Amino acid sequence: MYDFKYENETDIRFGSNHIDAELHDAVAQFGSNVLLTYGGGSIKKSGLYDRVVKTLDGLNVTELSGIEPNPKIESVREGQKLAKENDIDVILAVGGGSVIDASKVIGSAAFYEGDPWELVLDPSKRKKIGQLPLVDILTLSATGTENNYGSVISNMETNQKLGTMGPHRPSVSFLDPELTFSVSPWQTAAGSIDIFSHLTEQYFDQGKDADVTDGLIEGIYRAVIKWAPVALKEPKNYDARANLMWASTMALNGLARLGKQNGWTVHPIEHELSAYYDITHGVGLGILTPRWMKFILNDKNLPKFVRFARNVWGITEPDDRLAAQEAIQATYNWVKSLDVPTTLPGVGIDVDDNFVVMANSAVKVGHLENAFEPLTASDVEHLFRESMTVAGFED
Amino acid sequence: MYDFKYENETDIRFGSNHIDAELHDAVAQFGSNVLLTYGGGSIKKSGLYDRVVKTLDGLNVTELSGIEPNPKIESVREGQKLAKENDIDVILAVGGGSVIDASKVIGSAAFYEGDPWELVLDPSKRKKIGQLPLVDILTLSATGTENNYGSVISNMETNQKLGTMGPHRPSVSFLDPELTFSVSPWQTAAGSIDIFSHLTEQYFDQGKDADVTDGLIEGIYRAVIKWAPVALKEPKNYDARANLMWASTMALNGLARLGKQNGWTVHPIEHELSAYYDITHGVGLGILTPRWMKFILNDKNLPKFVRFARNVWGITEPDDRLAAQEAIQATYNWVKSLDVPTTLPGVGIDVDDNFVVMANSAVKVGHLENAFEPLTASDVEHLFRESMTVAGFED
Repeated sequence: MYDFKYENETDIRFGSNHIDAELHDAVAQFGSNVLLTYGGGSIKKSGLYDRVVKTLDGLNVTELSGIEPNPKIESVREGQKLAKENDIDVILAVGGGSVIDASKVIGSAAFYEGDPWELVLDPSKRKKIGQLPLVDILTLSATGTENNYGSVISNMETNQKLGTMGPHRPSVSFLDPELTFSVSPWQTAAGSIDIFSHLTEQYFDQGKDADVTDGLIEGIYRAVIKWAPVALKEPKNYDARANLMWASTMALNGLARLGKQNGWTVHPIEHELSAYYDITHGVGLGILTPRWMKFILNDKNLPKFVRFARNVWGITEPDDRLAAQEAIQATYNWVKSLDVPTTLPGVGIDVDDNFVVMANSAVKVGHLENAFEPLTASDVEHLFRESMTVAGFED
Repeated sequence: MYDFKYENETDIRFGSNHIDAELHDAVAQFGSNVLLTYGGGSIKKSGLYDRVVKTLDGLNVTELSGIEPNPKIESVREGQKLAKENDIDVILAVGGGSVIDASKVIGSAAFYEGDPWELVLDPSKRKKIGQLPLVDILTLSATGTENNYGSVISNMETNQKLGTMGPHRPSVSFLDPELTFSVSPWQTAAGSIDIFSHLTEQYFDQGKDADVTDGLIEGIYRAVIKWAPVALKEPKNYDARANLMWASTMALNGLARLGKQNGWTVHPIEHELSAYYDITHGVGLGILTPRWMKFILNDKNLPKFVRFARNVWGITEPDDRLAAQEAIQATYNWVKSLDVPTTLPGVGIDVDDNFVVMANSAVKVGHLENAFEPLTASDVEHLFRESMTVAGFED
C-alpha cells in the first residue's frame, strides 16, 4: 500500500431539498458578482434555469451559455473575457461534466493575461494564479468533476482533448438526483460507463494490498452495474438516479486511488477517438474497455481479474482463468445491455485512416508506458482494429 | 436513499514519510503556542516523543500527559486550564482515540468559562464557542476520531461515558501505520473489533438502496476481517497495519453513513459496560455484537443479514436463513480468533448487579427506540445475560 495525501474541501449537498433553500447563501458567501454557466438550454426547458435565477435574486449575474459536450477552449476564452469584464467573484455552473469542467478552467483564466489554452497545457500555471470559487449544480452523473480538481478540454484546431488539473475542487456541489430524471437513455448509459471506466482505471493497478480502497471500488462497481439498467428502464427511479450520482462522485473524488498506483489506460485511448471524431466519451469507453481487458489478460494480471470476477461480478466459476474470461464477457454484456453501440462502426467510425496517428498520440499523451499493462502504439492500434467488429464477444 | 450533507476538511497525510518533514509546518500554520497532548508515556519509550519535539523546534510547547484510555473529564479540565494559561493556538495530539478525543473537547473548553463536562452534555455550546485547530498523530487504529467530529468522554463520578460532537474535525491527521507496529495484540484486536462495530452500526439500518455506501462498508469489512489476524501474527506487517489504519478512518469519517439512517445499538450498550467496569471498549463490542445479531435476526431483518453473509463473508449457502446464521457465527468466530474474551466473565464481570440499571441507561442514552431493531431495557438486559456464557456459539 502506497503513501498518500488526501484533502477534500467540497461541501456536498445531496438530495432534492437543498437547492431552493440553500443555493443563494452557498453562492453569496463568495461575493455578489456571479458568472452563471450552462450548456445548450436544456435547463431552460426543464425549469431549472428559472429556479436557479430566482434564488440568485439580489446578486449580479452574468451568463455564459452554450458550453458544449467535450467542452471547447473557445468557451473558456469567452468565460475568461466575461469574468474579467464583470469582476466575477464566484462561478455557478449548472450542468454536466462539460459545463463544470470548462468553469473550473475559466476560474483560473479569470486571473490570467494570456490565452487559457496555455493553462490547459501547463497546470502549474494554474497553481500559481489560483481559481475562482465554484459552486455547481450537477445535471448528469458521469465524470465526477463535481468533487475533483480535473477538467477535460478540447481544442478542435489541434485535435487535442486534454485532461488538466486545477488548484481547487468545487467549493459547493449540489447533487440532486431528480435533476437527472430527464437525462436521455444514451447519456445515462454513457455516463454509467464513464463511472465504470473510472473505477476500472484505478482498480487495475500493479500496487498491492490496498484492500480498503479496492473494496470501496468493488462496492461502487456493483452499485453502477445494478442501477444503470434500472435507470434506463425507469428514468424517474430515484434510488437508481441517486446511486448513479453518488457513484459518479465517489468514483473520481480521489478516494478510489488512495494507496494505489495510477496509470490510466482506456481514458487516454478514448480521448483520441473523441478528439478526432467527437463521439460520446462514455460510449467510446464502453467499446474499448472489454477489448483492452481481453488483450491484457495474462498470467501476471490474472489475480486482479479473478478478484474482479468474484467481488464485482459474483462469478463462482472455480477455474481462475475461466472466471476472468467470464468477467470480461460480463463487462461486454453489461455495456451492450445499456443499448449503446459496442463497435466503432456503430458510432460512425468506418475507416481506419487515423488509427496509427491516434495510437501514437495515446501512448505519448497517456504515458501508457506507466499503465497497469504498458501498451505500445501498435498495441493501441490493435485495440482500435479489434473494436471494428464484435469478434471475440459475439461469436 | 436519504438526503445528506457532507464536508470533510481534514488534511490526511498517510504513510511513513510525512511526520519529520511536514509536522512543523502543519502545526505552525495555526500559531506558535502549542499544547502537546499524549497518554501514559509509551510515546517516550518508542522514541516518537523525541521525534515530535524535535520537529516543533522554535514553537512554544506546553505539555499535557497522562490522558488515559476511556479518557476522563479530569484530563479535559487540566487541558482547559493549560490552554487558557498559555494562550494556546493549536493542539497537537499524539496517541490513540483517547488522546485525540480529549483534545477535541479541550479545544472547545479553551474558549469556555464553565466546567467542560457541561460541553460534553450539551454539544450545541461547542458549536457556539468553537474549537482550537487540532493536529494529530495517530498511534492506534480503532475509533476513527482522526477524521471525525466525535469524542467519547467518561465521568467516573456519575458513571457516565458519553459521546459528544464538536464543530470541527481535526485539521491535519498524520496516519503512519509504522507507529502501530508496537501496538499490543490486545489493543490490536480491540481496535479491529471497534472498526468492525462502527461498520456494523451503520450497515444495519432500515434505509433502502444506499448501495454505494453499503458497498463501501462491505469493502472495509472485508479488509478488516482479512488484516486483523495478520497484524496479530505479524505486528510489523506494514500492509496489515496500513489497511487497519485506513479502515479505522474510512469506517467513521461519515462516508459510511451517507444516504442511510443512523440508529446505533451496540455502542451505547457497550458504553454502559465501559462506564461501570472500565473494560476495553472494543472487547466489550466483540462480546455483545454476535449476541445482538442473533437476537434481532427475524424475517424483516433477514435480507440485510443475507447481504452481510454474501458480500462480507462470502457465504454461498443457498438457504437465506442458514446463510444469515452462518454469518453471525462467522462474526463470533472472527472475534474469538483475535484471542480476546468472548464472554463478560472473561473480562471480569462475574455478577449481574448492574444489568438492570445499565440496560435502562443504554436504552435512554442510546435512543434504542430508533435502532435498526428497536430494543427495550429488558432486551438489553437479556443481551447482558446471554453474554455471560458461550451458549449458542460454542455448543
